[in-house]
Amino acid sequence: VHESELSTDAVERGEYRHYMQKEIFEQPQAVANTLEARLGPHGVLPNIFGIDSEGLLQAARGLHIIACGTSYHAGLVAKYWIEEYARLPVSVEVASEYRYRETVVPADTLFVAISQSGETADTLAALRESRRRGYLGTLAICNVPESSLVREADLKLMTRAGPEIGVASTKAFTTQLAALALLTLELARRHGLDPQRYAALCTELQHLPRAIENALQLEPAIIDLAAEFIHRQHALFLGRGVQYPVALEGALKLKEISYIHAEAYPAGELKHGPLALVDETMPVIAVAPNGPLLDKLKSNLQEVRARGGRLIVFADGTAGMDDMAHHGAMLRVASGGSFIAPAVFTVPLQLLAYHVAVLRGTDVDQPRNLAKSVTVE
Amino acid sequence: VHESELSTDAVERGEYRHYMQKEIFEQPQAVANTLEARLGPHGVLPNIFGIDSEGLLQAARGLHIIACGTSYHAGLVAKYWIEEYARLPVSVEVASEYRYRETVVPADTLFVAISQSGETADTLAALRESRRRGYLGTLAICNVPESSLVREADLKLMTRAGPEIGVASTKAFTTQLAALALLTLELARRHGLDPQRYAALCTELQHLPRAIENALQLEPAIIDLAAEFIHRQHALFLGRGVQYPVALEGALKLKEISYIHAEAYPAGELKHGPLALVDETMPVIAVAPNGPLLDKLKSNLQEVRARGGRLIVFADGTAGMDDMAHHGAMLRVASGGSFIAPAVFTVPLQLLAYHVAVLRGTDVDQPRNLAKSVTVE
Repeated sequence: VHESELSTDAVERGEYRHYMQKEIFEQPQAVANTLEARLGPHGVLPNIFGIDSEGLLQAARGLHIIACGTSYHAGLVAKYWIEEYARLPVSVEVASEYRYRETVVPADTLFVAISQSGETADTLAALRESRRRGYLGTLAICNVPESSLVREADLKLMTRAGPEIGVASTKAFTTQLAALALLTLELARRHGLDPQRYAALCTELQHLPRAIENALQLEPAIIDLAAEFIHRQHALFLGRGVQYPVALEGALKLKEISYIHAEAYPAGELKHGPLALVDETMPVIAVAPNGPLLDKLKSNLQEVRARGGRLIVFADGTAGMDDMAHHGAMLRVASGGSFIAPAVFTVPLQLLAYHVAVLRGTDVDQPRNLAKSVTVE
Repeated sequence: VHESELSTDAVERGEYRHYMQKEIFEQPQAVANTLEARLGPHGVLPNIFGIDSEGLLQAARGLHIIACGTSYHAGLVAKYWIEEYARLPVSVEVASEYRYRETVVPADTLFVAISQSGETADTLAALRESRRRGYLGTLAICNVPESSLVREADLKLMTRAGPEIGVASTKAFTTQLAALALLTLELARRHGLDPQRYAALCTELQHLPRAIENALQLEPAIIDLAAEFIHRQHALFLGRGVQYPVALEGALKLKEISYIHAEAYPAGELKHGPLALVDETMPVIAVAPNGPLLDKLKSNLQEVRARGGRLIVFADGTAGMDDMAHHGAMLRVASGGSFIAPAVFTVPLQLLAYHVAVLRGTDVDQPRNLAKSVTVE
């Protein structure tokens, strides 16, 4: 029932200037809808992946996650989550790569496809190709119940983002993360996570809509920050661990709608090459570094301060932030906990891309060269 | 004996303008040295990984490869090779990520660390960390026999690149590929590759020094091409399959020494976001596409031709190339076969980065902000 329910204003912009802005602000509700009747006070409810899901999830000894673009970034977050909490090995690959080579499939591997539309050509072809590669079973994480992907997968978990009109995906991504967090918890419970830790993670996930709501309050500060980017042609996004995919997603948003060449790196790779690019034309945006990482970043940036290198930090808490004024700007984001942090830190990066694009006067909802669903190869 | 042997002119520039150029042209000899007394007429010779290697390589059921920067790209090539020919699952991770999270280690996994210097701080820390994660054993692929990495690993295979002075790694990378090709063949033979196919791959690898020699003949054509890049600030490198890491390496070279913001994507991801960046300021460089992929690329680029999008193709053979004149430039590279192709296609991309940097007047051998060996975190 839920999956087909559209609110009356789902395809109206209402008070918002663009669909993308509206969709960014719909995220608390979209994520709450995705968790509703699936996550109860004592944990993930039974059979949310379908009636036949119990046996497959119990038997899984590893996962292959396949997706494209933003959905691929959601899959990368899930890899960090599932390896940490369920201790199952996860491999994530872009669909256009997966379908054209003979991957090795260990016994009892679950195939997971992620797509907003469920019609992404490469992802659908990968699902079909997976049939002859000997998987335990297939699971679709998708936003459109009537889609080919959902019809053809063994198990399914619908995101309930509602229609997404903006070409640059926002609420589809965070609801994918909510769905993948449910998958993580279900696998973790079945594969040995300590019950107390499981309960704590469930509580954290329940809090996700509110944590996103809080992050949306950063909009005025981000509008100020966006002004710095009007004449930029480059940006470097750094993240570490589960925040590296968030850095990738932040860079992709900026690429897609502002046409700024933004690239993401795992923070530790900076000194293995990309540091050569850093000068006054290349701001460095660090996502959620912890204290020690921030110190390393600062020491890297000190080397290029003479060239005007600028550091912008989105951080949880204040550890090691006292002298940020010397190095650049800092925005505090209340993560709501380390499990849900990637979904929460995504929000200010979406807002940054959006407001930079507005200031640059691009066609935010219909960026050049791109289509909403890539239904051809 | 070989490992410590330096030729008398190893640290002289000789006729070359920069160490980097000299080192690019040393690659046929460096790769031949790396294969010498290891690859015989009937295949990989016994015990080249060390006296205790036979049991470990036989028992291996998967590999984790850990490295940084250019060495990480060599590891990515090895993933494609080992999965295709030895049918063992391979996971590749940057060392700074690996060491700070609890990876999942399936039974009988071999740990492989790759580093030119053997003193790369993150890679060395990852090797030490791996000791308590339950691996079958550890293997170092390294260029410095006296290094910490070589001393501490169970198995080792030295690259014989000789001293590399240029900060941007060239011959270290292709000799790493030669060493990893030997590892691939040894694993493939032990894990069921058809003997005829094994023999054919060995013959192909024997030919690698000559194939690199041929690729070096492209230098005059690449000097012409480099002129196009003097005033560029951006470039997009596309590859697919085993050539995707080659695209990553080509982009990294251009970043490191010419300070052009070059980024690599798996070709199929272009339409999932980065296509928005493509206009007359952003040339697209495609590495070794096959016919069907080239058609898809052309159709993507057609969409942006009105904006001046330019396509430069490094291709083996002529399939589908007839109308390239409408779309951009094409350079023919004789790959010498699909197995060794990634090492061969690397060479023109090194030459491109080198000659662009020379034209832009950067400090080629000592690019700004970078150190040769990153021995601190």
